Amino acid sequence: MKTFMDQNFLLETQTARTLYHDIAANAPICDFHCHIPPRQIAENKPFRSITEAWLGGDHYKWRAMRIAGVPERQITGDAPDLEKFEAYAAVVEKAVGNPLYHWTHLELQRYFGVEEPLTARNALGIFERCNGLLEDGMRPQELIARSNVRLLCTTDDPVDGLEYHEQLSDKNDSGATILPAFRPDKALSPASADYPQYLERLEEIGGDSIDSFEDLKHVLSRRIDYFHRHGCRLSDHGLDVVPCARADAAKLDAILDDAWAGKPISLESLAQFRTELLKFLAEEYSKHGWTMQLHTGALRSINAPLFAALGPDIGCDAMNDLPIAIPMAGLLGVMSEDVPLPRTLLFSLHDKDNYTLGVIAGALQSEGRASHVGVGPAWWYHDQRDGMVKHLRHLANVSLLSEFVGMTTDSRSLLSYTRHEYFRRILCNLLGGWVENGEYPADMETLGDIVRRVSFENAYGLFR
Amino acid sequence: MKTFMDQNFLLETQTARTLYHDIAANAPICDFHCHIPPRQIAENKPFRSITEAWLGGDHYKWRAMRIAGVPERQITGDAPDLEKFEAYAAVVEKAVGNPLYHWTHLELQRYFGVEEPLTARNALGIFERCNGLLEDGMRPQELIARSNVRLLCTTDDPVDGLEYHEQLSDKNDSGATILPAFRPDKALSPASADYPQYLERLEEIGGDSIDSFEDLKHVLSRRIDYFHRHGCRLSDHGLDVVPCARADAAKLDAILDDAWAGKPISLESLAQFRTELLKFLAEEYSKHGWTMQLHTGALRSINAPLFAALGPDIGCDAMNDLPIAIPMAGLLGVMSEDVPLPRTLLFSLHDKDNYTLGVIAGALQSEGRASHVGVGPAWWYHDQRDGMVKHLRHLANVSLLSEFVGMTTDSRSLLSYTRHEYFRRILCNLLGGWVENGEYPADMETLGDIVRRVSFENAYGLFR
Amino acid sequence: MKTFMDQNFLLETQTARTLYHDIAANAPICDFHCHIPPRQIAENKPFRSITEAWLGGDHYKWRAMRIAGVPERQITGDAPDLEKFEAYAAVVEKAVGNPLYHWTHLELQRYFGVEEPLTARNALGIFERCNGLLEDGMRPQELIARSNVRLLCTTDDPVDGLEYHEQLSDKNDSGATILPAFRPDKALSPASADYPQYLERLEEIGGDSIDSFEDLKHVLSRRIDYFHRHGCRLSDHGLDVVPCARADAAKLDAILDDAWAGKPISLESLAQFRTELLKFLAEEYSKHGWTMQLHTGALRSINAPLFAALGPDIGCDAMNDLPIAIPMAGLLGVMSEDVPLPRTLLFSLHDKDNYTLGVIAGALQSEGRASHVGVGPAWWYHDQRDGMVKHLRHLANVSLLSEFVGMTTDSRSLLSYTRHEYFRRILCNLLGGWVENGEYPADMETLGDIVRRVSFENAYGLFR
Repeated sequence: MKTFMDQNFLLETQTARTLYHDIAANAPICDFHCHIPPRQIAENKPFRSITEAWLGGDHYKWRAMRIAGVPERQITGDAPDLEKFEAYAAVVEKAVGNPLYHWTHLELQRYFGVEEPLTARNALGIFERCNGLLEDGMRPQELIARSNVRLLCTTDDPVDGLEYHEQLSDKNDSGATILPAFRPDKALSPASADYPQYLERLEEIGGDSIDSFEDLKHVLSRRIDYFHRHGCRLSDHGLDVVPCARADAAKLDAILDDAWAGKPISLESLAQFRTELLKFLAEEYSKHGWTMQLHTGALRSINAPLFAALGPDIGCDAMNDLPIAIPMAGLLGVMSEDVPLPRTLLFSLHDKDNYTLGVIAGALQSEGRASHVGVGPAWWYHDQRDGMVKHLRHLANVSLLSEFVGMTTDSRSLLSYTRHEYFRRILCNLLGGWVENGEYPADMETLGDIVRRVSFENAYGLFR
Repeated sequence: MKTFMDQNFLLETQTARTLYHDIAANAPICDFHCHIPPRQIAENKPFRSITEAWLGGDHYKWRAMRIAGVPERQITGDAPDLEKFEAYAAVVEKAVGNPLYHWTHLELQRYFGVEEPLTARNALGIFERCNGLLEDGMRPQELIARSNVRLLCTTDDPVDGLEYHEQLSDKNDSGATILPAFRPDKALSPASADYPQYLERLEEIGGDSIDSFEDLKHVLSRRIDYFHRHGCRLSDHGLDVVPCARADAAKLDAILDDAWAGKPISLESLAQFRTELLKFLAEEYSKHGWTMQLHTGALRSINAPLFAALGPDIGCDAMNDLPIAIPMAGLLGVMSEDVPLPRTLLFSLHDKDNYTLGVIAGALQSEGRASHVGVGPAWWYHDQRDGMVKHLRHLANVSLLSEFVGMTTDSRSLLSYTRHEYFRRILCNLLGGWVENGEYPADMETLGDIVRRVSFENAYGLFR
Repeated sequence: MKTFMDQNFLLETQTARTLYHDIAANAPICDFHCHIPPRQIAENKPFRSITEAWLGGDHYKWRAMRIAGVPERQITGDAPDLEKFEAYAAVVEKAVGNPLYHWTHLELQRYFGVEEPLTARNALGIFERCNGLLEDGMRPQELIARSNVRLLCTTDDPVDGLEYHEQLSDKNDSGATILPAFRPDKALSPASADYPQYLERLEEIGGDSIDSFEDLKHVLSRRIDYFHRHGCRLSDHGLDVVPCARADAAKLDAILDDAWAGKPISLESLAQFRTELLKFLAEEYSKHGWTMQLHTGALRSINAPLFAALGPDIGCDAMNDLPIAIPMAGLLGVMSEDVPLPRTLLFSLHDKDNYTLGVIAGALQSEGRASHVGVGPAWWYHDQRDGMVKHLRHLANVSLLSEFVGMTTDSRSLLSYTRHEYFRRILCNLLGGWVENGEYPADMETLGDIVRRVSFENAYGLFR
């Protein structure tokens, strides 16, 4: 029996251990997609407690607690920090096979030196120990520095002023470059009730009125320039359904007029608006040398009472399962009609799409550019061990693992960097298994190069 | 090499063996979903032969025999029992990797003490041995008793009088509580040719005429009360396609009128009728404290000649593969608009839906109730080893394994209780593997608690 | 650590090794589906170089090279053979986990005696060694003979004259029977721009004018007779989307008229035309005792610039992911309304369909005929190790592995026969694993029989 989560956690062969300890463990982190608020990094305030750090914004934990029957008061409500922590401890204690179990203990081990498994019985002691360490200065920038993060992208709206990024370029002890990423989901949502207000904010920050689709493109283009000057090299889109429908300028202007007027927008009009705006944005990204991320397949906020009480992003999102091959191939085709695609990363929230996206990506390479269109890491409900193994094997089979851009935390928590360690252990274990089963030569130089690239270099290369 | 199907069958680690032999093997069975006719249990007649017990209603075996080229005469036809048994033996002998191979030998070992593999060569001897034991009093109630079944739910139509359940509450030597489960599929099928006749039977048993959708709801509500008084705590719906469409009372009455008149019902009308009736039923279940099962994704009776000859449920059903996230989230949303959802179990016949349903369920928890919406066990074509492993791993990843309601036989055969043993071995092997690979602590108390809950207690808890 | 790709490559148990070396390795090959041009076999010209043999038509290799950023000139362009070979070597060297890695080294080992892993560093030496052996007479027919191929089906259009097959029946040193397979995709594509020209070729070769749908059926029927006289026993259809829509003769004639006139054909009309023509063809196949293959789910030529430059089949195809259960069950139902289905093999390019198709096939068996409707081998992007393991396990679970028709190369290359070895090693490893884990008896006679059948006999039986 292997010891519980020791140094060789998930490393089942000697080759895996060598690759992990000699190569992967030392590689820095390029976390190109996360949801940490730039303000939190810039302000660099200490955490009140481990409860704030863990339960302040982690909907994975909230879901598990709800499934275990914990009352909402102890999840997102006003229960005291210790009570919430103990409630979580009693849940995670039994969460065998759930990624929370491993994430929780990796974080306890790496940041707090807690080696024993968290249970309802030892929760109080661990709570106090963690809080003591947090008080002693484990502030956001120190956490980033301790995690060996070289580069980190936040997720930012075109109307964001990037003032925290400016602050961070003046003063930043994290050792990491903190860059914005351009996520114009709101600009692509003319059917939202607050779209007129959003357009007004765009007008204000852009200094121009938006009376036509051309105007909208113009303002967004200038925001892209602005983000670019702040170091942004990456965009991101949440496409819960992949749009693919064409429209001419007159039709697009009419949709924009309806949106300004708060009139209903049909699904067809919405798809047209999105397709044409995405085409324009993709062309802009391409011209700026940016990478474009497309995150597809979320089905959001399906719990009406909890949405009414707590709003979005609180653990009540599901995954959609529509066919995506035809619209995704179509959308990428539209995007590349006039200007070559930017470097592109495809994500789906449904694991049935692993092969679909991998094979589409493989068909859309650009002359002489490595992995110009590729898939992103296993996303959200799939960034657990089984999901990552499945994703890596799919990717290796229909693409080249050595070109894979690797892991992101996609997290709202500064303690999530251990997920890179988790991923790297899984990667090294997969490679080591192949080698020791006689399926790939024990060429440690080539293997080490692959590990280095997938752990850090390929992702970091997006920013060169 | 491990011995063929010995006491440690499927138990690959010492931890797995301990969990299985010390905990799982001793837990009683709560088989909350099966298709055993209540009459068969109540009448308690001995089997004519192992052929009747095995081939009398098992469409898994029929399918395999047809794939092997066995003539229908030896499958569902009038061939003598021995000839049929020998035909089956010759097929199962080569059925490597098929669950029938394991089910067959678990049943031979546990009920008949036959340890050798069944082949065409030894079929006659085994036939005679099994028949001798069946003759010696291995009647239905004895089989249930021997299988350590504590509770068993049959599957019953609202128009069923439950007279066999009444008989069983008077006289029942099985040691198990035998309860009805409410399955109103026919009431939800206004497009069926025999719907008018079905409505007449509902009127008759309900003592009221059904002239409006309200009347229909009223009658069904009274049948729910009637079932409840007979101990029913569980309903079940076969939703081959998940409906989600709204309609007002006038429209629903018009659909009902058309149904009475035998007029065609459009797909849209059918979806409306089902959605609104399911909403009403869900509210009733919620008020009665019942659990609601939704079985989605069957594509039934696709072999026209065999359907004409033998009718439904004879092994010619397939699995559907439509997207289900949007309609399922939508239907559950409609159901919970006015009254909280009842305890709900989701099933799909397509394994692509494992994650989809697990994640939807996790988003729909009710304040302070553990696993209020959850997934049911791997169903039908997936209740084999690979399917159950995949299902358990998916479930552990996006939910809490410890809250899982566990196995049902879903069977028409009284010899299928060994499928619970099969499931428990797989469960214990999964847990044991995690522990021995250092992924979860060797905390036998917590692990034992999880095994006990998933083997029996969680399912039994549906009836408290 | 196992030695890299030695004689026990992929054989992890003693039982697997025995089954492979004693049984599978010696079975001949029946490659019932490939894309080798009959002209290449008949002309029997030596290869110019290993580059021509490997990179002349292999879109798997082209895709990998594009993903690695190799310029098109070194892939399909006019770079010298050595430069292309070195570019490929540099890519495959790092292609860990990709089937190209194993295919490449199996081919180097078996045909060229090269045991060392191919790298950028040793590429020149291997290039020269392979070329030398190719020059020394390793012509197409010799390659087929060395590969122990007993029977091989090419893929042929109804308008093909089969002159190379006639030539081969006069003079053929390959030791294999070379038969045509009937693939009338073009006849089923009335919406194609070149359909009128295709109809003219059909008229010419059929000697009759095609003025009605009946005429078209008549001409195709006579081509089936012609192919049958040339030994054809197998048809094949590429159904990128599965059609299922009915139409009467007048409608079908109207569609044909539109097709002759080059008018647009609606999607509905296309589905009707295809459904009715497929129904007719299936009946013809049934009457001739042929096997019908249905390949579904390709999404072709999604890279517009490369399509413009290089045409179809150059590595820019993706997989579709539409639901297929209802149309596939529907189409097979239509096909079998009047005449029993021919022996049928179902393929999908999406792995989500493995179970769907396996379960549909199992429901459509014909009285007393073994595996009358079945699934074909893991196809295209899935004929790698993981894909084949998954496919075999699915198949074993919902069907009978012993009836499986086994592997095809589906290749454009005469060096691909080692894929049969690859498949057989995977098959034997799966069986051996089950046996050594106590899940199936160590009955080497039955296991050997299964291995023999799946390796060769079941496929060869299609031609008896």
